[in-house]
Amino acid sequence: MSATGTETPAIPTNHQAAKEHFRVPEPLGPAENLNVRRSPAEEARTIVAGQSLATLATLSEGDHPWASLVAYGLLEDGTPVLMLSTLAEHGRNVLRDTRVSLSIGDEVPSWADPLDTGRVTLTGRVEEPADEAERDAAWEAYAKIAPASVMYRTFGDFTTYLLRIDRIRWVGGYGRMDWADVEGYVDAEPDPVAPNATHAIEHLNEDHADTLLAMAQNIAGYTDATAATCLRADRYGIDLRVDTPRGKVQSLRIGFPERVNEPDGLRAATIELAKLARVDVGKH
Amino acid sequence: MSATGTETPAIPTNHQAAKEHFRVPEPLGPAENLNVRRSPAEEARTIVAGQSLATLATLSEGDHPWASLVAYGLLEDGTPVLMLSTLAEHGRNVLRDTRVSLSIGDEVPSWADPLDTGRVTLTGRVEEPADEAERDAAWEAYAKIAPASVMYRTFGDFTTYLLRIDRIRWVGGYGRMDWADVEGYVDAEPDPVAPNATHAIEHLNEDHADTLLAMAQNIAGYTDATAATCLRADRYGIDLRVDTPRGKVQSLRIGFPERVNEPDGLRAATIELAKLARVDVGKH
Repeated sequence: MSATGTETPAIPTNHQAAKEHFRVPEPLGPAENLNVRRSPAEEARTIVAGQSLATLATLSEGDHPWASLVAYGLLEDGTPVLMLSTLAEHGRNVLRDTRVSLSIGDEVPSWADPLDTGRVTLTGRVEEPADEAERDAAWEAYAKIAPASVMYRTFGDFTTYLLRIDRIRWVGGYGRMDWADVEGYVDAEPDPVAPNATHAIEHLNEDHADTLLAMAQNIAGYTDATAATCLRADRYGIDLRVDTPRGKVQSLRIGFPERVNEPDGLRAATIELAKLARVDVGKH
Repeated sequence: MSATGTETPAIPTNHQAAKEHFRVPEPLGPAENLNVRRSPAEEARTIVAGQSLATLATLSEGDHPWASLVAYGLLEDGTPVLMLSTLAEHGRNVLRDTRVSLSIGDEVPSWADPLDTGRVTLTGRVEEPADEAERDAAWEAYAKIAPASVMYRTFGDFTTYLLRIDRIRWVGGYGRMDWADVEGYVDAEPDPVAPNATHAIEHLNEDHADTLLAMAQNIAGYTDATAATCLRADRYGIDLRVDTPRGKVQSLRIGFPERVNEPDGLRAATIELAKLARVDVGKH
């Protein structure tokens, strides 16, 4: 099968071969300011903070896994709050076994591949709040995402639970995944720009494709780049997909000169990048 | 606490009391053509057929539940097809214990309450295809939702699985839920209008609110209705939220005269309903 007389590489038969097959072209010029990224703990904390719906895995009778939709609130330290009814199978399951897992998926922009979008798995045990103060904090957190819960807080079939997290798995997309430690998750700040990122990415791709290309050429050293598309944006920088005559770079990091600390700070930060890329930002 | 001197009913303290508290007003006139609905099996089959992303619950070491995002394809009988890598925890989990659960959520329209939107839990065991024909069918089904899978079908870390379903739980939203039997699920046809329903609902609410009101008044017998909003539409009819001076009807079914069999058949069916409601459809 190897002596076909053509120069087409064989179709890869495993992940390592695939890596070789889709070799990423290297920069041709000097590259600066790359690889400044959110930590896995920040990634996880940001995704969890941005959503209020999750899938809960519990154990049904005989320890059969059971997956079901739940809403969750968040304590200030990122601990998820659940209110589960014994009218639902998951509510009966946790009475028997408190071990659970929560899967939370990030928003999938209309143009994105859902499997290349962030998600988090938390595992741990559900526990009732330790005291009245914690119960009140839990109720308050849950009411933020489900105002009607104020009414059923005291219903006999509902129990308020905190998920005491013991493991955190973050998957950012293809080839981007890691474990986060619980302490790091508690200490991490949700990325303040996350709620505005999708809009910013759309704006960059629609109106500033030339600027993105200049960033790939003049900041990342892909001097032969012919096109660049923004895939992701966060408080530390942006990820680009870059076309070159030597092949595509599927995800190229370009870091901002400084971390963004305000929800609406992406615009100013990308203007700084444009200046670094020697784009005349006066016209933007 | 009961002798407050006001006529406000006490805040309900359980589900039964809540039902009394929010008593639904009865029709004042004759009501016809109601309560024609999809069976739980049809509901489940429709939701499963309409999506390709799910959350899989598996058992990690020590039987701790593990929830994670997966893509799934579908065999013609509604059997989900998974391709799981042992590089991921769920892929290693099912090698140890084949029991799994799959939670699949329906699309949530922008105006809808996610907890009042459909979802399905399937449980069962994953098995490799029984023979080459079934494996080819599984690969074909999976390639429809993940074309790149053609490349990694034969990677050593990937295994192709079928979910042999043993239990099916459908939740349509608040107060709408039931079990579906597996045979009924296999026999059920996914609702052909489902992909067009959200658009049809938006159109009805934006441009035909008067017609919806006439349906509530003249078909469902709510002669004192003052407003009606379409919540859901399927091949058998529509659900309305209706305002009356006597209170709200949260979900009122109005069935079509005949089941819709074509994906684009909702428009003609609602025109038939409008005629039944004695609306001059010439102007619509």
